[in-house]
Amino acid sequence: MTDRSPLARPFPIMPDIGGVTRRIARAGYKDWGRCDLTFIELAEGTSVAGVTTQSKCPSPEVEWCRAALAHGRARALIVNAGNSNAFTGHRGRAAVEAIAARTAAHLNCAPEQVFISSTGVIGVPLPIDKAEAGLAAAYEAAPCSWEEAAATIMTTDTFTKGAVAQAVIGERTVNVVGIIKGSGMIAPDMATMLGYVFTDAAVAPALLQQMLSAANRRSFSCITVDSDTSTSDTVLAFATGAAGNGPLASMDDAGADALAAAIGRVCLELAQLVVCDGEGASKFVEVTVTGAASDESAHRVALSIANSPLVKTAIAGEDANWGRVVMAVGKAGEPAERDLLSIRFGDTEVARRGLAVEGYDEAPVAAHLKGQEIRVGADLGLGDGRATVWTCDLTHGYIAINADYRS
Amino acid sequence: MTDRSPLARPFPIMPDIGGVTRRIARAGYKDWGRCDLTFIELAEGTSVAGVTTQSKCPSPEVEWCRAALAHGRARALIVNAGNSNAFTGHRGRAAVEAIAARTAAHLNCAPEQVFISSTGVIGVPLPIDKAEAGLAAAYEAAPCSWEEAAATIMTTDTFTKGAVAQAVIGERTVNVVGIIKGSGMIAPDMATMLGYVFTDAAVAPALLQQMLSAANRRSFSCITVDSDTSTSDTVLAFATGAAGNGPLASMDDAGADALAAAIGRVCLELAQLVVCDGEGASKFVEVTVTGAASDESAHRVALSIANSPLVKTAIAGEDANWGRVVMAVGKAGEPAERDLLSIRFGDTEVARRGLAVEGYDEAPVAAHLKGQEIRVGADLGLGDGRATVWTCDLTHGYIAINADYRS
Repeated sequence: MTDRSPLARPFPIMPDIGGVTRRIARAGYKDWGRCDLTFIELAEGTSVAGVTTQSKCPSPEVEWCRAALAHGRARALIVNAGNSNAFTGHRGRAAVEAIAARTAAHLNCAPEQVFISSTGVIGVPLPIDKAEAGLAAAYEAAPCSWEEAAATIMTTDTFTKGAVAQAVIGERTVNVVGIIKGSGMIAPDMATMLGYVFTDAAVAPALLQQMLSAANRRSFSCITVDSDTSTSDTVLAFATGAAGNGPLASMDDAGADALAAAIGRVCLELAQLVVCDGEGASKFVEVTVTGAASDESAHRVALSIANSPLVKTAIAGEDANWGRVVMAVGKAGEPAERDLLSIRFGDTEVARRGLAVEGYDEAPVAAHLKGQEIRVGADLGLGDGRATVWTCDLTHGYIAINADYRS
Repeated sequence: MTDRSPLARPFPIMPDIGGVTRRIARAGYKDWGRCDLTFIELAEGTSVAGVTTQSKCPSPEVEWCRAALAHGRARALIVNAGNSNAFTGHRGRAAVEAIAARTAAHLNCAPEQVFISSTGVIGVPLPIDKAEAGLAAAYEAAPCSWEEAAATIMTTDTFTKGAVAQAVIGERTVNVVGIIKGSGMIAPDMATMLGYVFTDAAVAPALLQQMLSAANRRSFSCITVDSDTSTSDTVLAFATGAAGNGPLASMDDAGADALAAAIGRVCLELAQLVVCDGEGASKFVEVTVTGAASDESAHRVALSIANSPLVKTAIAGEDANWGRVVMAVGKAGEPAERDLLSIRFGDTEVARRGLAVEGYDEAPVAAHLKGQEIRVGADLGLGDGRATVWTCDLTHGYIAINADYRS
């Protein structure tokens, strides 16, 4: 078991969401003494939206969710921990269909209103008998807390992760909460990010999708731990409507901006929590690129910096190695001019327009790099494009988690 | 000082090349008791070709070489070790111009016939006084061996690297030799790959460039240590013509194929030697992708596998974790179908058409992974595209070299 991340944040106080009931059970996907199946029941009429991995080799759960999202409505979410069911062919698909059928029968709904995720070992079909026994137990279980649900979806995460925000729509205050797991590692498999957002706001599926997609672009799409992408990454948003606001159908509706902003804050916090549990992470790193040819170009340069092993090891070593940042800008393949490039650590500019800043004060840079929250800035001096992404450092802990075992 | 790589190969017996004279000297770019300036004099009429980093932030040496290559002729190569002169603005450019001017005066040639590389610390202009003193000493030095030159261009490489091949052109046997440095690390800076190929064949600059570019596509473009790209990477090829073969001007000329093949073999060996000195490397890894939509697509998928930290740590852990290979195929963004994908370690297929091979013999896989030369195969089952790339594993040694120090 890996130690709790030094970057762990406390689980927040999260309100209940009308129309959302959480239950957990032991399916026994692994030989561990903990709950590993989460069943979240959703009120009739709940809207759903989602974003899934860009992997060309997605798990059958991802394929199921993509198809189900087209219908726009959800009555249940099932999350299995300990077995990702990825790369398991027709037997994996059969397990997903069985879970959906059984839960649909339990709730008297259509199977495509049952959303399913799995995370854990790859290449082993999810055992249908264990899933069905776990579901039977979960259906009968007493409701549990958000933190218990957040703990049950974890694999080798080192802390539970949740986020909360509110918005005012007309005369109603609506709640938005979320839980997430990642990027812990379960031997011998890859990390997977699974995130779920719940709100009691009434919002049409298409608008919820628009809000989630926009939030995703500024949160989950802006984090990286090691540049690797899971076959199972999934974020789903559910809106029950229990708050009783006038249903939102367009961004022009009053209060839609506020709800979108709340969803955005929850997604951003969830995304950053994943970075805080990055394998071996000892420092949280914010990379901001300004002066790029466009925002998209800035985003790609920022990810090039954030994914660079040499930048990440320099930060682990608390070394103000701006040459590695120059390298990472140069290799991004985006418009850049060496003699316009400036680099900043914390609040201190260490290189300006292609040259080291002679005699810059090293004390605040050294002090900044000794901290747990590191800011790296690169100004390309070309245009108005800007982007911020988040990552963690690359330490011996990453190697220990990912290399120091045999499957 | 890092220990000699366990993957080190012995320096080969390399013949002298007519028209090539090697000399080394101490410029003292760092406070180290070794030669750090290499001066290679080339006979009049020597053809030159080159490939340089794709970084958008290249060093002034790279810019100088690119401009000089347009002239096609070389009389000298100067390599400075201990200071990369990268990101040093007009002062860096002045140092390069001074070296070229002084060497041109010494040899009574045009400055653009002097090729220059530097490797080492970034952001510190190359000190012109040290360079000039080093040059003065090098001009007067006695000629040295290939291995002494290979040692002098090193920074934190752990072994000297050379390669040799021969070709028959008409009635003449021509020699092709090469030396290279990389990808050791010199605190606090990035690795740089500098490679130089020399032949006594007579070949026109444009044809030499064609041969070197083709060789580069199958060698230096097919290796990766950590996905990072130096601002200074440079490979140059020099052909003196001393062998007296009928000058080659076209691939249709008799013997051109043989020379191109010999240059290809030398470049491939040099490229693989760089991987063998990869930071912290304990295993040499060959990744072959077959069945892709095109060769280019196969190359991108192979690099996605070879650059994946999760694949590289699994290999370090001697773990047959084919799920991570699936993940790396999936994230490459290239055409792939999960249910057509097959994965191989060594000679054993562990997953076939989207499913684990049930009951495959784990003994040969485990034995293969315990070795120093690891082969990973992925067949995409789509088309005839194929590619092979080479990398090394990702170990605690990489973190130790790159994070466990302060500049």
